[in-house]
Amino acid sequence: MLGEIIAIGDELTSGRILNTTSYFAAGHLFAAGHEIVAMTTIGDNAAVIAESLHRALVRADFAIVTGGLGATSDDLTNEAVADALDRPTTFHPDILRRIEEQASDWAAQAGVSVEKLAWLPEGAHELKSDANMAGYFLVHDGKPIFFLPGVPHEMEELLLETVITRLAVWAGQEPRTVHQKVFRVVGVPETAINGRLRHLEGRDSRVTIGYYPVLPEVHVSLNVTGTSVAEAAALFADYDREISASLGDHCYGEDGDLLEEVVGSLLRERGCSLALAESCTGGGIAAKVTSVAGSSDYFLGGAVVYSNDLKERLLGVEPGVLAAHGAVSEATALAMADGARRLTGADLALAVTGIAGPSGGSPEKPVGTVWFALAGDEVTRAFCFRFSGVRWQVQSKACYAGLDMIRRQLLGLPLVP
Amino acid sequence: MLGEIIAIGDELTSGRILNTTSYFAAGHLFAAGHEIVAMTTIGDNAAVIAESLHRALVRADFAIVTGGLGATSDDLTNEAVADALDRPTTFHPDILRRIEEQASDWAAQAGVSVEKLAWLPEGAHELKSDANMAGYFLVHDGKPIFFLPGVPHEMEELLLETVITRLAVWAGQEPRTVHQKVFRVVGVPETAINGRLRHLEGRDSRVTIGYYPVLPEVHVSLNVTGTSVAEAAALFADYDREISASLGDHCYGEDGDLLEEVVGSLLRERGCSLALAESCTGGGIAAKVTSVAGSSDYFLGGAVVYSNDLKERLLGVEPGVLAAHGAVSEATALAMADGARRLTGADLALAVTGIAGPSGGSPEKPVGTVWFALAGDEVTRAFCFRFSGVRWQVQSKACYAGLDMIRRQLLGLPLVP
Repeated sequence: MLGEIIAIGDELTSGRILNTTSYFAAGHLFAAGHEIVAMTTIGDNAAVIAESLHRALVRADFAIVTGGLGATSDDLTNEAVADALDRPTTFHPDILRRIEEQASDWAAQAGVSVEKLAWLPEGAHELKSDANMAGYFLVHDGKPIFFLPGVPHEMEELLLETVITRLAVWAGQEPRTVHQKVFRVVGVPETAINGRLRHLEGRDSRVTIGYYPVLPEVHVSLNVTGTSVAEAAALFADYDREISASLGDHCYGEDGDLLEEVVGSLLRERGCSLALAESCTGGGIAAKVTSVAGSSDYFLGGAVVYSNDLKERLLGVEPGVLAAHGAVSEATALAMADGARRLTGADLALAVTGIAGPSGGSPEKPVGTVWFALAGDEVTRAFCFRFSGVRWQVQSKACYAGLDMIRRQLLGLPLVP
Repeated sequence: MLGEIIAIGDELTSGRILNTTSYFAAGHLFAAGHEIVAMTTIGDNAAVIAESLHRALVRADFAIVTGGLGATSDDLTNEAVADALDRPTTFHPDILRRIEEQASDWAAQAGVSVEKLAWLPEGAHELKSDANMAGYFLVHDGKPIFFLPGVPHEMEELLLETVITRLAVWAGQEPRTVHQKVFRVVGVPETAINGRLRHLEGRDSRVTIGYYPVLPEVHVSLNVTGTSVAEAAALFADYDREISASLGDHCYGEDGDLLEEVVGSLLRERGCSLALAESCTGGGIAAKVTSVAGSSDYFLGGAVVYSNDLKERLLGVEPGVLAAHGAVSEATALAMADGARRLTGADLALAVTGIAGPSGGSPEKPVGTVWFALAGDEVTRAFCFRFSGVRWQVQSKACYAGLDMIRRQLLGLPLVP
């Protein structure tokens, strides 16, 4: 179907906040076989909201409206919709009761009124009756309009869990067959990946291959369309196989996979416990590892050793090693990994020590120099990388390189791409 | 003046590319005193381009159109504009000559014809006569329309170097004076902040106050416009003072300030060294602290102690304390903070232990229960928070609450908001 996406908020039209929700919605709606006729971003202005809604109802088969559903006084989507569509707001006591129950302790303590969230335009139905967030739909002039929160993670959850499926039911037919897959790649630059896949481009008009740098990863998308399920599936399988072969072990996962989840699953499968000793990444690798639910099953803990003193006292790095080789060196990285393993009793320990910048570099060890070491029963190895970029880029690249090293060790791959 | 931004490209409406150019333009136009009535993103479709242009000419004083100016077959902005505004394209030999000279290396190699770039709608004038890129403007129905490339850095260059100044000249007057400030708030929900500031809203049409949850922070924006510098400055100073007073110590910074930077500056100013002992935040606080350049001046390091064993061995938490009170308890948090301080010799140590979920909760200690402890010469205190949300939200809220506790300790404020 033809859809229109309308994002509402002064923070968007004044250029303070980048609108990522419309982009997210467009990508998923497109993948579900819909075409987006327009993505409109407007301020918190009732007249412009009304005008945009009417226009969407003329040129599209459905509309997604995001933002302006909150409880504060500048949230005026519901009133504007009520006026524009001549659907006076009505009170939903059940919604208020649930929101009050689920509202954060902060809100309750602060004595804040959330009643506004329970006044919806006539004919509105909740999208998800157990959700702790705003979000409803209504059908006007025979066309469904979905109203979603502007907060990205809430909007994304409701879109994926309710809107896509309701639209499929609404369309009442098998949507245009689209197969889409994202290959997630780490450790290779976009241009090198492009070179590996260029021979596959332009061979078939039903196939699109895209490259999206999401630093320090690169995501490669494959889109295949077809008029029949069988046609699209066969074509998709061919390209999927060819791309997978070309990317090889640089591809760590697909679609929504995260590197830290892939590493976590491998650790769990192999019954391997992990410890970390981080200097220049400052806890960034540990934070990624522990962002995964259930990571306490395989992650024991780690040390963030920023000072040399702590490298000695906590990890037992010999003062002589630090004096002779410096904190950023093969010897120190190996001693840190050994120390972390001894300290925690983990099966595998990763150590990282480097110069994230902006200061601390030297001609021999410029900013971006990072030593990694892995220590385990089957491995004791150190590697040096030289990452480009400013502080956060060096730190981010080092976090991903470290995680990828653990993945490669567990899969028996060469430890460095 | 009132402006509209129209971005053209199938890559945008299919959700393959995030539209950052409209965001860039909106921010700079807003800062120059203009108001954006709508940002419209549409595909490479002549009918929709025509409709969007006509609409912009009705509701705005000027329009910025980006994308679709290239030399390939899917670039059809010029033809669509020519049809929509009844301005047949005319050939500009001087433009072609310059583009051919400047584009020789890539276009000649690729055997690409760039002639298309020299056919512009009647009445079009180049934006920059020495530019190696497309970009022109024309005046229709007495309103200026600017056509810019979709490539972000080209569009940004032309916008900053030509569009902003031409619009100021067009307006024929000193641009409207705009003062903008963002107050960054942590530890209070959006609705409570709204309650504190509601009395300031709607008092003056020249003043806009906005609320933006950027979890777990809230950003409050103040925008003041005036026709003279003195008028706007005086009004801004009044509101700035009133909002600051209302937000009190919940406001940790302004505009681009980050909480970890504010905490870092305070530690540096006071010559106070910091250590961390993290359980449920898993290194997330350390990662934030060390994301700040120069953090090695005040951050010594820390321990990520996920297992009980490591809490005992690394931080010296007594097995009896863990057995009697559990890992998530006041006694354990205090012992962790003491241990981290002893281990590192830091002036101040923060410990965090809690249940991030999704598993691990109990009726007495549900998911979201987090104990914090601060240990230093002048303080030994523990606090319990109960955060709502899923794992990443609990972790993120705990990171910010922990950082804010350090800020409050260093400023002599109550440790809990």
